[in-house]
Amino acid sequence: MRHVIYMDNAATTRLMDEALSAMMPYLTDSYANPGGIYDLAQEVRKDIATAREEVASSIGAYPTEIFFTSGGSESDNQAIRQLAELGTFPHIITTSFEHHAVLSTCKYLERKGLARISYVNPNPSGLIDPAEIEKLICKDTILISMMMVNNELGTIQPVGETGAIAKEHGILFHTDAVAAVGHLPVDVRAMNIDLMSASGHKFGGPKGTGFLYVRENIKLPPLIYGGRQERGRRAGTENVPGIIGMAAALKVMNDNMDRNLARRRELDEYFRAVAPMATPASPADRLPGHFSITLPGVNAEELIVRLGMAGICISAGAACASSDDEGSHVLKAVGLKGDALKSTIRISMNENNTEEEIDAFFEEISGFLR
Amino acid sequence: MRHVIYMDNAATTRLMDEALSAMMPYLTDSYANPGGIYDLAQEVRKDIATAREEVASSIGAYPTEIFFTSGGSESDNQAIRQLAELGTFPHIITTSFEHHAVLSTCKYLERKGLARISYVNPNPSGLIDPAEIEKLICKDTILISMMMVNNELGTIQPVGETGAIAKEHGILFHTDAVAAVGHLPVDVRAMNIDLMSASGHKFGGPKGTGFLYVRENIKLPPLIYGGRQERGRRAGTENVPGIIGMAAALKVMNDNMDRNLARRRELDEYFRAVAPMATPASPADRLPGHFSITLPGVNAEELIVRLGMAGICISAGAACASSDDEGSHVLKAVGLKGDALKSTIRISMNENNTEEEIDAFFEEISGFLR
Repeated sequence: MRHVIYMDNAATTRLMDEALSAMMPYLTDSYANPGGIYDLAQEVRKDIATAREEVASSIGAYPTEIFFTSGGSESDNQAIRQLAELGTFPHIITTSFEHHAVLSTCKYLERKGLARISYVNPNPSGLIDPAEIEKLICKDTILISMMMVNNELGTIQPVGETGAIAKEHGILFHTDAVAAVGHLPVDVRAMNIDLMSASGHKFGGPKGTGFLYVRENIKLPPLIYGGRQERGRRAGTENVPGIIGMAAALKVMNDNMDRNLARRRELDEYFRAVAPMATPASPADRLPGHFSITLPGVNAEELIVRLGMAGICISAGAACASSDDEGSHVLKAVGLKGDALKSTIRISMNENNTEEEIDAFFEEISGFLR
Repeated sequence: MRHVIYMDNAATTRLMDEALSAMMPYLTDSYANPGGIYDLAQEVRKDIATAREEVASSIGAYPTEIFFTSGGSESDNQAIRQLAELGTFPHIITTSFEHHAVLSTCKYLERKGLARISYVNPNPSGLIDPAEIEKLICKDTILISMMMVNNELGTIQPVGETGAIAKEHGILFHTDAVAAVGHLPVDVRAMNIDLMSASGHKFGGPKGTGFLYVRENIKLPPLIYGGRQERGRRAGTENVPGIIGMAAALKVMNDNMDRNLARRRELDEYFRAVAPMATPASPADRLPGHFSITLPGVNAEELIVRLGMAGICISAGAACASSDDEGSHVLKAVGLKGDALKSTIRISMNENNTEEEIDAFFEEISGFLR
């Protein structure tokens, strides 16, 4: 296999060796359905319980507050769609630069006449002002849904402040933390988070896994009805290897979080120091190593394909919208227009990238920057 | 690891070696998000397209009719819930012994006032009479949902006949084929199936995978909204290793279907020949090797736990209802009452079981049969 310089960790991450090792027994001998009552099944059931405890403790939650799902999108859909169903034409406040899993669910609710939605715009730096959210709260508001880290810009939103506002007004706060979990410290209680979505493959876990945190005493109905798995909140035979792998990856990420963040800050600094173009400022409110950069006059798609042929992987926005011809809704939300929408690239490094890779990246794109 | 006699293949199956081998590249180097536009991602995208073609051709469908999901339950929920949403209080006909993924979705629709549901009972042999379904069809009926093989009894339902009735009346036909796909020949066109649910882990594929077949020109809305994966019908980053593994397992099952069925018939015959108790009749309308047996005076749960300690895995009903104290709804539907509900076991063999295992099984339970 050719050497790959992978700088698209916001799209997905390489499955961690530790996660794969943890999964292997469940991909081979420990294949029993955890719903069985015989030993082989009960052992698997116990291992899932342990994974649940690990995931819970890493975000300051109780194990009974963690519901394993197939990923971030499913978690977002369940949180928003099923909460909305509990009300009668409730009001929901979200932001205009959420992931499509949140926005399309909100659009669906609007289209069906099931909820009224308000969309708060970020400022040009890609940050939401919690005061803007608070202004929109009215009598029938039941939910605020704001992402923790924007997946295209890498900007870190004021989740704690927004959670406090939600609590003060007695409404629920959901955060799509898909781009944050495993990368930044998360404490659902300190941040007043009521519901939180996460995705395994964004932090070195397997694809097809995720979880939804739901604070105790919130009666969220299932999105997927059926068997009594996940204490009746999410039916379907548990994806045992996936759950175990996700928990293992999250543990590694959390155990190394300080070191990883320090290393990412180094890479971020190096990137900005050697970049032959304007880059976002130092990462106070940004995931270090994550850059959204507009290259005037450059066709981003062409650049990315060309870099890809050289084994360098970056993207032009969210991977799941790669067939979207209308331009990124996130970039539009922060005020980009016209050509700039087609000239913006996303570089998302993690602690495994190197200065040499950054050099190689800039060398490769230098031809495009003339 | 101790020797395990696994006769609970209706609960889940061991991941096939061929499936795991097919998955390994995607659990290691080929980790790119198929939504990316660079080479590494596009290669993965192509591999998913190939998997989709394989799955489609195995059931007589077009690749554009296959939507990968996280499993059978998700597929059932999407098919029924989202179809119901297209109508205004539509009428749906199903059976009283469907899997909970179908029944609980129907109960949800009833509870919410979103649909009217009719439930057809099977006869005491565990078979649905299509004439009973036809009698219930009325002007506002939009859908018939009947499983292909009952997951507790192993009985094979008259899917082709029911599909023809649906077609004649211009209504849609969904079948939960979770217990059938990979085990019995399936041809969605010959059987007039409009929507079909399948689950990877029931035929040697990985847990957390499944698919929904939706006939062309049926506009089924997503259950999970978000990115444009699966042509806008199912959002969320594709579970690449899962999809590849499921397709690989299905291919092996289909390539060996005749041989597998012949071997299962042998095992079925042997089982009935040596069984020290009454067994279901020869498997004309039953998945060979799948037995639901009532043992008067025996506490099934106790028996199963005891067998489990000896390394023999069977079950008392669907694994996903193992915490259900009310007794199996399937057994009730075929007329079992009182103690019989607590004295019924399910043995589900596949082509990998042996006559020696059957002997060992009967030897182990003989103590319970006195």
